[in-house]
Amino acid sequence: MIERILIVGTGLIGASTGLALRAAGFTGKIIGTGPTAKTLMTAQEMGAIDAWFPREEVDAAAMRCDVILLAGPVLSILDWMQRLAPLLGEHQLVTDVGSTKVRIAEMATELYNQPGRARFLPGHPMAGKESGGAALAEATLFQNAMWLFTPLDDAPPHPLEAEWRAWVAKFGARTMDLNAARQDEICAWVSHLPQMLSTALAALLEDTFGGDPKSRAEIDAIGGRALRETTRLGSSPYSMWRDIALSNSEPIAATLHALEQRLAHLRENLRTPELKEEFRLANEFRARRDH
Amino acid sequence: MIERILIVGTGLIGASTGLALRAAGFTGKIIGTGPTAKTLMTAQEMGAIDAWFPREEVDAAAMRCDVILLAGPVLSILDWMQRLAPLLGEHQLVTDVGSTKVRIAEMATELYNQPGRARFLPGHPMAGKESGGAALAEATLFQNAMWLFTPLDDAPPHPLEAEWRAWVAKFGARTMDLNAARQDEICAWVSHLPQMLSTALAALLEDTFGGDPKSRAEIDAIGGRALRETTRLGSSPYSMWRDIALSNSEPIAATLHALEQRLAHLRENLRTPELKEEFRLANEFRARRDH
Repeated sequence: MIERILIVGTGLIGASTGLALRAAGFTGKIIGTGPTAKTLMTAQEMGAIDAWFPREEVDAAAMRCDVILLAGPVLSILDWMQRLAPLLGEHQLVTDVGSTKVRIAEMATELYNQPGRARFLPGHPMAGKESGGAALAEATLFQNAMWLFTPLDDAPPHPLEAEWRAWVAKFGARTMDLNAARQDEICAWVSHLPQMLSTALAALLEDTFGGDPKSRAEIDAIGGRALRETTRLGSSPYSMWRDIALSNSEPIAATLHALEQRLAHLRENLRTPELKEEFRLANEFRARRDH
Repeated sequence: MIERILIVGTGLIGASTGLALRAAGFTGKIIGTGPTAKTLMTAQEMGAIDAWFPREEVDAAAMRCDVILLAGPVLSILDWMQRLAPLLGEHQLVTDVGSTKVRIAEMATELYNQPGRARFLPGHPMAGKESGGAALAEATLFQNAMWLFTPLDDAPPHPLEAEWRAWVAKFGARTMDLNAARQDEICAWVSHLPQMLSTALAALLEDTFGGDPKSRAEIDAIGGRALRETTRLGSSPYSMWRDIALSNSEPIAATLHALEQRLAHLRENLRTPELKEEFRLANEFRARRDH
């Protein structure tokens, strides 16, 4: 039975998980840790955590928790996995919210899920906002969002896994199990490619028009919803994407390359009937999503 | 004084203009024409036009109108410009809502704006929906939208031009004057490129995953707001974009080519500090739009 939870990293996702646990009726203890006292204090004031420890002093508390949720960027999750593995035992469940899963699943197989070691269940809530931080956390962040899990081969059932999945379901999230490579490939298509595309388009417009006040004013005055939506993700901070780009470079590069070729194909066919076929395919893709 | 207006093409934009005129207090006569009786009847039932003529029988009515608004796709506007030019006189104002302006401005200089000929003022309301048709028309469609004008060189003031501009202002639209080449270039960046990008991305996803029900279900279940917004314009019908692609091919091709190169640059820098610079530029572009 889960009675004590440690949330490592109380930014947007970590703090929202604490709030969602409370809103769903969790009455146990929620402890926080992370690199920044200010963020931890904000999370505590909001009620996302009951208490917190600086990261240098959290080991003893971690050893007394049933579930440890690693909620930072991917590279910091990997660091924490290394640090905690030797401290924890078989009765404990470690899970995470990292955006890419291949490297995390590899390390989980290597350092966890073995006799005497804690269980690791990789997880990935597909929720967020353009900017992060505890102050934007909400108990409802995961409602109708997808929370992916990457159960690892050969891991026998762990008593706390079903209970953790039940809490996630109570947050209002949908869930799906995918293996790590497939999750990283699908996320490259539906999340990382749209981000990189939006960043590239906004950066290109800034480079092309940003230096000239008159052009800038024209672009800003004339651009409407089409421009706003296709560049909206351009607001995302690098700090939220660096680890994703580093830990999922090959799948992201493959989707970018495919899109470059598709844009070239469309460009070469602006005056041919092939353009009609591109619109037909796009209409078909959207028709399923619009219903 | 504008007392009779002919709207040629009573689809979304044409019918919305009729409704906006009435909502703004226009008490004169509004006549419609166009290729499809059903569309014209819908526009009449909504109150966008008072009466209509089949396109084969509209010449006499056109000769008695003060303002003629050409509201179809660009190639049909060019056809109507040719047909009407010899029928109309100096006292009349012809204007349009075409999405690209270079070819329309060229024809206007050639066939209008000369002694004995009607005045042509190219116009372009930046408003619309993913799908068209009179049934979706609204009097409020132009509120806060940009309505561009392309006044032609050497055209002396025409008595009806200021009055037509005043009606457009009463629709709640913002207005700006741009020359034809500049308008087509800016619209390629802020409207045509986002459309082609969204079409290419949706078509690519359909080609990659559409044939496999399991992959399709994964994409549909896991894709969130990022995917929805970057592919939303993929719903746009080819019929609304064919003439834009044909009449503005070179500026659109130039923007597509620039984006292809930018995506390749980003792809080659997923693991270098240059990615941070791309995010910084994109953040700067968005910062102006978010305030």
